[in-house]
Amino acid sequence: MKFNVGCKLSYSIHQPSTLIFNLKVIQNDYQNILKETLEVDPPLDREEYGLSFVENQYFRINAPLGKLSVSYNATVELSHVYVESETVQEVPPAELPLEVLPYLYPSRYCQSDKLGNMAQSEFGDLQPGFSRVTAICNWIYEKVEYLSGSTDSQTSAYDTATQRAGVCRDFAHLGIAFCRALNIPARFVAGYAYNLTPPDFHAYFEAYLSDRWYIFDATRLAPQSGLIRIGTGRDAADVAFATFFGAVQPEEMEVFAHQVFEPGVKAPAFTTRAIATS
Amino acid sequence: MKFNVGCKLSYSIHQPSTLIFNLKVIQNDYQNILKETLEVDPPLDREEYGLSFVENQYFRINAPLGKLSVSYNATVELSHVYVESETVQEVPPAELPLEVLPYLYPSRYCQSDKLGNMAQSEFGDLQPGFSRVTAICNWIYEKVEYLSGSTDSQTSAYDTATQRAGVCRDFAHLGIAFCRALNIPARFVAGYAYNLTPPDFHAYFEAYLSDRWYIFDATRLAPQSGLIRIGTGRDAADVAFATFFGAVQPEEMEVFAHQVFEPGVKAPAFTTRAIATS
Amino acid sequence: MKFNVGCKLSYSIHQPSTLIFNLKVIQNDYQNILKETLEVDPPLDREEYGLSFVENQYFRINAPLGKLSVSYNATVELSHVYVESETVQEVPPAELPLEVLPYLYPSRYCQSDKLGNMAQSEFGDLQPGFSRVTAICNWIYEKVEYLSGSTDSQTSAYDTATQRAGVCRDFAHLGIAFCRALNIPARFVAGYAYNLTPPDFHAYFEAYLSDRWYIFDATRLAPQSGLIRIGTGRDAADVAFATFFGAVQPEEMEVFAHQVFEPGVKAPAFTTRAIATS
Amino acid sequence: MKFNVGCKLSYSIHQPSTLIFNLKVIQNDYQNILKETLEVDPPLDREEYGLSFVENQYFRINAPLGKLSVSYNATVELSHVYVESETVQEVPPAELPLEVLPYLYPSRYCQSDKLGNMAQSEFGDLQPGFSRVTAICNWIYEKVEYLSGSTDSQTSAYDTATQRAGVCRDFAHLGIAFCRALNIPARFVAGYAYNLTPPDFHAYFEAYLSDRWYIFDATRLAPQSGLIRIGTGRDAADVAFATFFGAVQPEEMEVFAHQVFEPGVKAPAFTTRAIATS
Repeated sequence: MKFNVGCKLSYSIHQPSTLIFNLKVIQNDYQNILKETLEVDPPLDREEYGLSFVENQYFRINAPLGKLSVSYNATVELSHVYVESETVQEVPPAELPLEVLPYLYPSRYCQSDKLGNMAQSEFGDLQPGFSRVTAICNWIYEKVEYLSGSTDSQTSAYDTATQRAGVCRDFAHLGIAFCRALNIPARFVAGYAYNLTPPDFHAYFEAYLSDRWYIFDATRLAPQSGLIRIGTGRDAADVAFATFFGAVQPEEMEVFAHQVFEPGVKAPAFTTRAIATS
Repeated sequence: MKFNVGCKLSYSIHQPSTLIFNLKVIQNDYQNILKETLEVDPPLDREEYGLSFVENQYFRINAPLGKLSVSYNATVELSHVYVESETVQEVPPAELPLEVLPYLYPSRYCQSDKLGNMAQSEFGDLQPGFSRVTAICNWIYEKVEYLSGSTDSQTSAYDTATQRAGVCRDFAHLGIAFCRALNIPARFVAGYAYNLTPPDFHAYFEAYLSDRWYIFDATRLAPQSGLIRIGTGRDAADVAFATFFGAVQPEEMEVFAHQVFEPGVKAPAFTTRAIATS
Repeated sequence: MKFNVGCKLSYSIHQPSTLIFNLKVIQNDYQNILKETLEVDPPLDREEYGLSFVENQYFRINAPLGKLSVSYNATVELSHVYVESETVQEVPPAELPLEVLPYLYPSRYCQSDKLGNMAQSEFGDLQPGFSRVTAICNWIYEKVEYLSGSTDSQTSAYDTATQRAGVCRDFAHLGIAFCRALNIPARFVAGYAYNLTPPDFHAYFEAYLSDRWYIFDATRLAPQSGLIRIGTGRDAADVAFATFFGAVQPEEMEVFAHQVFEPGVKAPAFTTRAIATS
Repeated sequence: MKFNVGCKLSYSIHQPSTLIFNLKVIQNDYQNILKETLEVDPPLDREEYGLSFVENQYFRINAPLGKLSVSYNATVELSHVYVESETVQEVPPAELPLEVLPYLYPSRYCQSDKLGNMAQSEFGDLQPGFSRVTAICNWIYEKVEYLSGSTDSQTSAYDTATQRAGVCRDFAHLGIAFCRALNIPARFVAGYAYNLTPPDFHAYFEAYLSDRWYIFDATRLAPQSGLIRIGTGRDAADVAFATFFGAVQPEEMEVFAHQVFEPGVKAPAFTTRAIATS
């Protein structure tokens, strides 16, 4: 399944400023970049970099006073791995790969330590496995209202657990926090999402089950197979699509994610099967 | 039904201090004080006072350096009014008596404004009336662990909603906050409780339904008919049994609440009927 | 000094709703109402009421679907008592009048219990008295930015202590919380303010010193002698100018507070003297 | 300067459990391990591992029911780099090495995003550089009380900013949060500390200035040159000395950090010079 994704962002820079972007699709086992363009106007130097512990392709731009626009366009082919969800198990901490252990710890927006009793009370008696993480997503979908503008960049899972309103990043943070509180490693994913209305960047999460990471999205705003990854992190603090240092005024933002027509290939659809990404 | 209740409190006063106590049983329509003694040792002056907006009989003592002990003993006869709970209704704000309106507003430990969405999500679809407040109490009983020492004097309903552990005052605060969030006036009650184990002061709450206040206790630690009132307030900030200004070290605390034997009178028992107190 | 104050508020009522207003100037020793009109359009019944423990003149309106407007206009003469500030003392809890003790306790937006160490650290070593409360106001003025829209109705003193931005009610809440943490009774005041730009309702606070309540306003937005009182309470939860139950959409809001010209009477001016209100 | 450091920890394991330890001294440019022993009793397998993004040498033990003890002992030689503090500069985000950028972002216990205004208000006008981070440490030392038992594992910089009491990890978290809020990269360091009373693990922080990381310790409990590093992280969530999954009861804990006598070598002493660690 192929997608054409990208964005066009523009800014007014009121004094020389530093901007860090994280909006490029990453290349990995299940995500193949067929074509990719990135244009910065004016054509400033950009420093691209990854970090060892998260899958993101950041770039930094030092912008002078004036206008700045960034346009990104990529054609990506996805080959997700589908697994029967009943076979997907939770892994005890004794057997977890050592490199996923950090995804058990609390982070800025996912205070799993403070939500331990709540997670036990709501989900502690459920059968462990893929279905328990699904139950967490259902709980969030049913009890938290998706409401644009109801939260801001400081809102965390601890807030959402009681305030019961939020957007995609809040839904992801709460799912992650509940998972970690139950000793299920979980990480935040930023991406493009097919068919998202209104078009925007999207956030969802992955839980480590059996021997790999599986996609979960409590918002139900896009089919799981239509999620194209930008990167992962412990929470939104690791994967903001844009971070500013200086006096930067966002102006326009356009985001898109369309399926590329291929004869015989259907549109992404919601599924109850498990989708692994690594 | 008659009860003998009281307490014996002792303190070390490390510098001249002011202590405000709120531990005397109040006299009202359903609670008749048959006998009452209050001893302060050394025999210091005490200033007794009530406040216009809450039913409490406070007294203030200015204590010199040394030991202080306060002993209280009262024999009280209760005549609760029992009502069939199906007949007990919620009252719309348009018809609420004006003097109960303040019990709709958020207070220090009952941030009903921050718990509005949660209350709607959990209880908004339930049939209004006595049964909805009962559902709130059942939810608290099932989802919050009663755990001595798990909270402190700064813990509020907003914390308990997620931390899911607490003691009687936390249970009461959460019940009150949920009620107010649903436009049901609710107030905090401090009292003595028959058969409480271990013996201690107790806290529970009342909701204003139909045309009076009804007792609710989400802890299920004592039968409703065995609750003897000290006073009421918007939350624990109004009815602390003891408040200190100075260097006061609590030493011993003994609290008791026994039924007075009367031929043919049974012990207090749990009931699903509604008990009104005013 | 005479003022003409008032407001004109209009609402769209999307379903029959209950509105509680608290916008009438109160009559008391230092505030004499010379003339007063209140118009409700359509001319619905209103129930006026006070509460025993706060000075406010509330009224309740049950409004049908449609438009609602409320216009209030009063001419008020103020005769404040000026006192030399060096003579104004803090009162130890042992000697405080019993009826002001509740203003030492924490409330919804003034969590003095959580700000005890901070108050001690910042103000504990200062000379007690009027000058210490002034120091609190100066601290707030210097460290908290007055920024419209930076806070909402859930923001409390605990938030403002770190977030360092807010509006008049946040400034008042923080001042009150610091005072109570230092055992100085403090209460919230809602009022009209001469010369306020942009025109709006105003909030400030009073501290109980020597033998009466004194005005403090950390915002420095209006001269103390130009503050016309609507009412008092433990915090904003007691004195919201409008509270809605139902589907009410605020439309227009106009607030004014002008001095009435009198030959030889100057305009209100900022002062470092203490102004008592009771 | 040589130190002999280590610990002896013992646990009762009430059901088979997983324990992750992070208590080994790390080997790096300025820290040379001369001798090291680690004993686990019973002699269970342990899996040692590092993580790519933090300097820590974790090990995992899966322990059966019964007793478990872990004894660690290392002799370490430190060769810190001393720099004249006036020459140590802050680095603008435009020039920061890309790999330190994550240490600008908020983390679980260091909510720099929520403390931005406070950091600006308290430190925004100070001269940038080493002296500004020193000013942050002085502020914390003066305004926050070091009080054992005043906080717990959920306490964060946001809490400490107002509650003004804490232990070494709280002091470090607050220092880190203020630095990040001012765009100074900062990270948490866990270590052994010479002369610490009572003996315990210690926490402090490092700020990235000029072209390397510099040590800061707002507690003033140990000379900077007597700090022996276990590891670093974004905050305490990355470098807990022990993390449990299961029913583990800590029993005894002994920690030590002595200087090894060498003729002519003085004891560690407090300094106002800057000490770089990388």
